[in-house]
Amino acid sequence: MSKKDRTEPRRLKGFRDYLPALMAERLAVIDVIRKEAALAGFQAIGTPALEYAETLLGQGGDETDKQTYRFKDNGDRDVALRFDLTVPFARFVAEHQNDLAFPFKKLQIGEVWRGENTQKGRYREFCQCDLDIIGVDSATADVEILAVFQRVLSQVDCGPFTMAVGNRVILSALIRNFVPGLDDAGEARALIALDKLGKTRVEFDQVFAERAPEFLTLLSTQDAAGDTDLMPVATLLEGDDKAQAEITRTRQVLALVRAGMPAKAVSTGKIRLDLTIARGLGYYTGVVFETTLDALPGFGSVASGGRYNNLASRFTSRELPGVGGSVGLDRLIAGMEELGKVKERQSREKKPVFVAIATDDAVAYGFALLAKLRDAGFSADVGMTPKLGNQLKHADKLGSAHVVLVGTTERENGTYSVKTMADGTEKKGLNLAAVLAMVAQ
Amino acid sequence: MSKKDRTEPRRLKGFRDYLPALMAERLAVIDVIRKEAALAGFQAIGTPALEYAETLLGQGGDETDKQTYRFKDNGDRDVALRFDLTVPFARFVAEHQNDLAFPFKKLQIGEVWRGENTQKGRYREFCQCDLDIIGVDSATADVEILAVFQRVLSQVDCGPFTMAVGNRVILSALIRNFVPGLDDAGEARALIALDKLGKTRVEFDQVFAERAPEFLTLLSTQDAAGDTDLMPVATLLEGDDKAQAEITRTRQVLALVRAGMPAKAVSTGKIRLDLTIARGLGYYTGVVFETTLDALPGFGSVASGGRYNNLASRFTSRELPGVGGSVGLDRLIAGMEELGKVKERQSREKKPVFVAIATDDAVAYGFALLAKLRDAGFSADVGMTPKLGNQLKHADKLGSAHVVLVGTTERENGTYSVKTMADGTEKKGLNLAAVLAMVAQ
Repeated sequence: MSKKDRTEPRRLKGFRDYLPALMAERLAVIDVIRKEAALAGFQAIGTPALEYAETLLGQGGDETDKQTYRFKDNGDRDVALRFDLTVPFARFVAEHQNDLAFPFKKLQIGEVWRGENTQKGRYREFCQCDLDIIGVDSATADVEILAVFQRVLSQVDCGPFTMAVGNRVILSALIRNFVPGLDDAGEARALIALDKLGKTRVEFDQVFAERAPEFLTLLSTQDAAGDTDLMPVATLLEGDDKAQAEITRTRQVLALVRAGMPAKAVSTGKIRLDLTIARGLGYYTGVVFETTLDALPGFGSVASGGRYNNLASRFTSRELPGVGGSVGLDRLIAGMEELGKVKERQSREKKPVFVAIATDDAVAYGFALLAKLRDAGFSADVGMTPKLGNQLKHADKLGSAHVVLVGTTERENGTYSVKTMADGTEKKGLNLAAVLAMVAQ
Repeated sequence: MSKKDRTEPRRLKGFRDYLPALMAERLAVIDVIRKEAALAGFQAIGTPALEYAETLLGQGGDETDKQTYRFKDNGDRDVALRFDLTVPFARFVAEHQNDLAFPFKKLQIGEVWRGENTQKGRYREFCQCDLDIIGVDSATADVEILAVFQRVLSQVDCGPFTMAVGNRVILSALIRNFVPGLDDAGEARALIALDKLGKTRVEFDQVFAERAPEFLTLLSTQDAAGDTDLMPVATLLEGDDKAQAEITRTRQVLALVRAGMPAKAVSTGKIRLDLTIARGLGYYTGVVFETTLDALPGFGSVASGGRYNNLASRFTSRELPGVGGSVGLDRLIAGMEELGKVKERQSREKKPVFVAIATDDAVAYGFALLAKLRDAGFSADVGMTPKLGNQLKHADKLGSAHVVLVGTTERENGTYSVKTMADGTEKKGLNLAAVLAMVAQ
């Protein structure tokens, strides 16, 4: 093709390619999520990338609507790419409710698309990993969600982490107690002020005025377990049955998650109560949680979610209470990268054994060995270029620890030669068992 | 929400949800592809779902262009959803050529979108699993591709299969020999006639006229190995150096795939030469292959591909020869379903152990057990509804073989009771080791 007919190979702004090293990290984390989800009885499902626009829009707020990729398809249907997995899942549950066994525990992993501002490492296509339990409103279901995220983060090797648990019902009751007569917009403003509390106190002081210090003391006083002390909160909200029930449940959730900590999480995972956690404006109706890496406190949450008791009310009259959460795959991997965990994992990863073919008459002999190595469970690659020197260079690029050389002598004698790349030594006249023993090291 | 505000939960025509049973099948096959790809040294990569329309269009023919989901994004860019993984991969290779070690072996698994006619079980969103080797034009690279598909199909339990290998250079040379003076359009017509030969001879007879029977004899005469006999073909094409070189290579490819058959494929996989295989009009420049399930001869190919020596020429002046293929995931699973293999796999699959909580005071005790079961590698679920009867019903729905019951007695004694669901028997007073031994059965 002539130069003028060529197209510049370019990607859309905000979209990424995944080269092998980054893709391997993503798959390693996804495999942990899938494994732990399966151990905890979550079942994987899938929904389409494209939905009717009316299914998706008006659910995530104006900002989300504006960011959604929406267009007319070839049949003039008004369609959109999903901006999260939650709204399609609500449609899924309503549509298939008669085919699901409730309580239904589901795992959904998939790409979502948002035409966001691409500053600060944000991407317009990113992967969400959602775990949810639908059809039951109980502390035990809340605990199952928190527990599975504890297990996932204990297994992905992101270092010690802390899960902070709040409760939207308690928080709302407290806000309305501290600022009586607040309307919904006022409560929303208060929630935003609390959300920003780690960064600035200005808005917090505006909303809670002279009672701001008192509120702050209430939120930050700790009990013996290191949790926010719920005793004074319970006293303050006396008579509010809904809030009292959520206080009881929140205590139970914390105790049960601690009772059911996976062996590995006992050393790496912690859980604590933090009533300031709001997780956005609408949506959540009970327990909420966020998870931060202890070594990267300013990094933001790598796993978060909460209880929402009206998931599918837009699609069905059936009440389907739910609780769930998401792993922020890309943020988690960025955190692991910053902590040097990605390099550690990569250096532990076994590289393929390389079969180098020294002479043309040994090609079939080499391919027979290749199959035997793979049958034995070894990742094995083979020289596909004619010159032996180039094959060895390629083996070096791949990071192979051992190269098995086959040529006329080996083929005639039914033996193999193995070169150890680290020191350049070569052993000749080996049989298959000896080769397998060497490459297993 | 009132009924009039509700939205009907509906999907777009041609788009599917994956319920747990079907999703489990997809993941099982994908896991085999990933495992075998890794064993053979293929590295996973990813590219975005959305690309500039100019990157994608004009590559798959007019029909493909018409089926592509193309629209203006919020920044007025002309964008499109990928209709295959090959064109984005060509862009990827051109863009990242300096970061890749050639020969580069890649695995790419992802959804693609085509606004096709939705008749006959065709979907507008479907998954492709592509394996390719870029940067080398050799028989050994061709063999590596055929070998990895042999391994994948041997492992997915789709029953015996046959890989049919053809060669586009030999086929073109034969066509032009039998119908001298054909232009490109004429050759295309001949290729289509050959492609349809299994269904109708009408067009074949039109193209090859009185020489049709002679051509058919040449294509169907078998040698000792059961392949199309290449001897008379080689004689007929004497003097055509390009065709002779491809005859030599095709022979070598068949011999090497046979030499490197994985242990399991020796019993389930076969390979044979079939010169009538064309695999579409443009694109391929050497070896081509298709794979059919022996028990479903009319079902079509479940894995196919071939050599293409100008993958990225539209994006770069660098010559990047390639060979590769695709597993048709949905067709393969449909085939396995028809053969009863899906049910077989599902019945072999271990269902979760179920922890039922008989009394409120035993919840923490039950959750501690749950963690121990999962730590020991058992998939385990738990009762999240208050009534024991409902918990047992749910365990039954999930197919659990064993339910571990915990109540006041068990908690106080530090023991467990295990109910075997098949016969309703219950053993009491078990310790953890006894529980693990029972559920392991």
